[in-house]
Amino acid sequence: MTEYVAMELTKLRAKTPLVHFITNYVTANDVANAVLAIGASPVMADAIEEAADMTSIASALVLNMGTLNHRTVAAMLAAGKRANERHIPVVLDPVGAGASAFRTETVKKLLAELRVSVLRGNLSELSCVSGLNVATKGVDVSAEDAENDARAIAKSLADRFGFVAAITGSMDVISDGQRTICIQNGHKEMTKVTGTGCMASGLVGAFAGAGAGMLTAAAAGVAAMGIAGEAAYEKIGETGTGSFHIALLDALSRLDAGMFLERARIYEA
Amino acid sequence: MTEYVAMELTKLRAKTPLVHFITNYVTANDVANAVLAIGASPVMADAIEEAADMTSIASALVLNMGTLNHRTVAAMLAAGKRANERHIPVVLDPVGAGASAFRTETVKKLLAELRVSVLRGNLSELSCVSGLNVATKGVDVSAEDAENDARAIAKSLADRFGFVAAITGSMDVISDGQRTICIQNGHKEMTKVTGTGCMASGLVGAFAGAGAGMLTAAAAGVAAMGIAGEAAYEKIGETGTGSFHIALLDALSRLDAGMFLERARIYEA
Amino acid sequence: MTEYVAMELTKLRAKTPLVHFITNYVTANDVANAVLAIGASPVMADAIEEAADMTSIASALVLNMGTLNHRTVAAMLAAGKRANERHIPVVLDPVGAGASAFRTETVKKLLAELRVSVLRGNLSELSCVSGLNVATKGVDVSAEDAENDARAIAKSLADRFGFVAAITGSMDVISDGQRTICIQNGHKEMTKVTGTGCMASGLVGAFAGAGAGMLTAAAAGVAAMGIAGEAAYEKIGETGTGSFHIALLDALSRLDAGMFLERARIYEA
Repeated sequence: MTEYVAMELTKLRAKTPLVHFITNYVTANDVANAVLAIGASPVMADAIEEAADMTSIASALVLNMGTLNHRTVAAMLAAGKRANERHIPVVLDPVGAGASAFRTETVKKLLAELRVSVLRGNLSELSCVSGLNVATKGVDVSAEDAENDARAIAKSLADRFGFVAAITGSMDVISDGQRTICIQNGHKEMTKVTGTGCMASGLVGAFAGAGAGMLTAAAAGVAAMGIAGEAAYEKIGETGTGSFHIALLDALSRLDAGMFLERARIYEA
Repeated sequence: MTEYVAMELTKLRAKTPLVHFITNYVTANDVANAVLAIGASPVMADAIEEAADMTSIASALVLNMGTLNHRTVAAMLAAGKRANERHIPVVLDPVGAGASAFRTETVKKLLAELRVSVLRGNLSELSCVSGLNVATKGVDVSAEDAENDARAIAKSLADRFGFVAAITGSMDVISDGQRTICIQNGHKEMTKVTGTGCMASGLVGAFAGAGAGMLTAAAAGVAAMGIAGEAAYEKIGETGTGSFHIALLDALSRLDAGMFLERARIYEA
Repeated sequence: MTEYVAMELTKLRAKTPLVHFITNYVTANDVANAVLAIGASPVMADAIEEAADMTSIASALVLNMGTLNHRTVAAMLAAGKRANERHIPVVLDPVGAGASAFRTETVKKLLAELRVSVLRGNLSELSCVSGLNVATKGVDVSAEDAENDARAIAKSLADRFGFVAAITGSMDVISDGQRTICIQNGHKEMTKVTGTGCMASGLVGAFAGAGAGMLTAAAAGVAAMGIAGEAAYEKIGETGTGSFHIALLDALSRLDAGMFLERARIYEA
C-alpha cells in the first residue's frame, strides 16, 4: 500500500487537479494552503448560483459541514448531484455530526441524496452516521458491528453505503468494506490546532482528483497529514501551537515520495 | 487577584470546557486556535437551525459582531436566549459598535433581549454602548459617569447592566460595578495584528466556561492575551507582524500558572 | 515612478486610511493583516444593512468576488454606489471571473452599475472581463487588442472602462490607457500560498485610500506585494509554504521607502 500511496503523490504533483470545496470559514484558509502545498489547486465557492458549475470544472468535490447553514447545504446538494452525474469523486467531512439535530439531519440528507466516495471524520462523527436510519440499498449494520469500535464502524459503513470510510484519531482506520487499513502516523499536538481534520479531508480530495482509487486516496490524504504532523513536531517540539501549525504546512509542501516510503506506517488491519 | 487568575488557568486546562462561538469569519481561525491554546475546546456554529442546540452543550457562549448579518444576528439571539435559560455565561464582543447604525442597533437589541455576562470591547465600542438608550432595570448613567474615561464607563456600564465590562487598550479596565481592576500587560505590536481583541473575548469565554466568576474570567482572559503579547514581542522583536502573530499563539499555548504569577500586572483601580 | 511609489508608502504610513472590504472568507484574515502591515486600517463588513454606511466612513472600498453570494453581491452594489457618490476609490478584484456564469454575470453587473477605479486580477480573469459585452461609453476593444496579451488587454480595458487595469502574473502589467507600466518583482513561491492576489488588491486599496493617484496606487500595491515575496523567499528559502506565508506578512510590515527604492523594478512598457 505504501508504495502505491507514494506513487500517487508524484502523480498528484504532476497533475495539479482542481478541487472544489464547500467548506467552513474557520479553516478554509488552512485547507486551501494545505491543498496547494500537496500540489493541487483549490477553489472555494458555495453560492447556489454557481456550486454545480464549479464542480463541473473540478476533478473532485469536498463537502465540509463545519459552519453549515441552509444556504450552503443547498449548495452542497446541487454540487454533489452534479458531481454524481459527471462521476467526479465526492469527499464528505461530516464535522460535528451528532452535536446538533441540524447536523445529524444534514448528513442524513446528504447521504440519502448523493453518492459519496469517501466519508472522513472522527470516531464520534462516524459513529453518529453509523446510527442513522438512512434508507440505502446497502446491507444494514448488524448489532455486532455497532460496537463502538473504529474498525467495525468503518467496515460496516463502507459495506452499507458503498463508500470508503476513514476514521481518524490516534490510530486512523480506513475501509472500503473489502479491505481495512490502519495508519499509525500523526502526533497528538495536531489536536491542539483547529482544522487538521478538515485539511486531511482536503488532501483526500486532492488525491482523489488526481485519479487515485478511493481507498488509496483516503489512505494517502490521511497518511500525508499524519506524516506532516510528525515532521512538524520534530522540527518545532514544544515551541507552541502557532509554530506547529505553520510547520505542518511547511511539511506538506515539502513532502515527497521518498518521505512517504520512509515514514508511512500503513498496515492491513 | 493574580493568584486567583493563575489558579483559574490550571482549572481551565483540567476541564477543557466547550465554548460556542457565533463569530466573524476574519478572525475565526485565530480565535479557535487561541481557545485551543489556552486549554478549552471551541465550536463555531451560526445557523439559526442549530445555534441554540450548540449553546445547550457548551459551557459558555461568545457572541462577536465582527461580520454580522441579519442571519447571524438572529442566531445570536436564539443562542443567547438558550444560554440565559440554562445559566450559561454569555460574552459579548460588540465589534464596531458605533461604526454603523446596524451595529449600534444590533448591540442595543442584544443587550435588551439577553442577559450578558461580560461585555468586552475597546473604549470606542463601549463608549457607544454607554450612550445607548436601552431600557434596563439598572441605574441610569449619570452625567458625571459619562465622561470619556475608561474607568467611569466600565463602572457605569457594569452598574447599569449588571454585567462585567472589560475595556481593553493600552491599559485594560474591568469592572463589575463593585470592583474595578486595571491590567497593564500587553504590547503595542498587538494593534498591528487583526483579531487580538476577538481572541481576548474568546479567552474570557474559555475562563467563564471553566467556572470562574465573571470578574475573574474577564481579568484572566484579558491578562492572558496581554502576557502572550509581551512574551511574543520578547521572542520576535521587530521581525514583523506575521511572526509576532504566530508567537502570540505559541505563548498562549505555553502559558502556565507560574508565568501568570510572574508576569500579570493586575491592580485594583 | 519608483520614487513616487516610495513616497506614497511614507504618506500611507502617516495617514493610516480606513479601507472597507467586502471580501471572501478564505483570505480575509491575510488581507486584513496585510493591510495593517502596510500601515492602513481594514474593516470587513458585508451586510446589506451596513455596507453603504461603512463605505461612507472609509477612504477606499475593495470588492473581492472570492466567495460571493447573492447577499454579498447586493452589498457590493450598495457599497459601490455610495463610494461613487462620495468619490471614494473602488478597487475590484474579479476572483474567478470566467470560472462560472455567476461570476461572469456578477463582474458584468458590477462594471455596468459602478465606476471602478482599479481592476486587479490575473490574465485569465481580465481576459474574461475584456470579452464581456458590457454597455459602456468607452471605446470598444478592437480585434487586434483582443490578442491574449497582458499589455494589450490592460490598455484596452483601461481605455474602454476608464479605470486602471492591473494584471498580475510572472510580470505585472498596469495601465490607465495613457501609460502602461510593467513590474518585475515577486517570486514563484507566491503562487503556492492562497490570497497573494487578494492581498495585492487590498494593498492597492490602502494606497488609493491614502490619496495616491490610481495608477500610482495600483503600481505601489502590486510592487509592495512583489517585493515582500522576494524578501520572504530570501529569508525562508525552501523551508516551506507555511513559513513563506508568514514571512510575506513580516516583509510587508517592515517595508519602507528605502526598500522600495532599492528593490522595485517598475518600467514604462
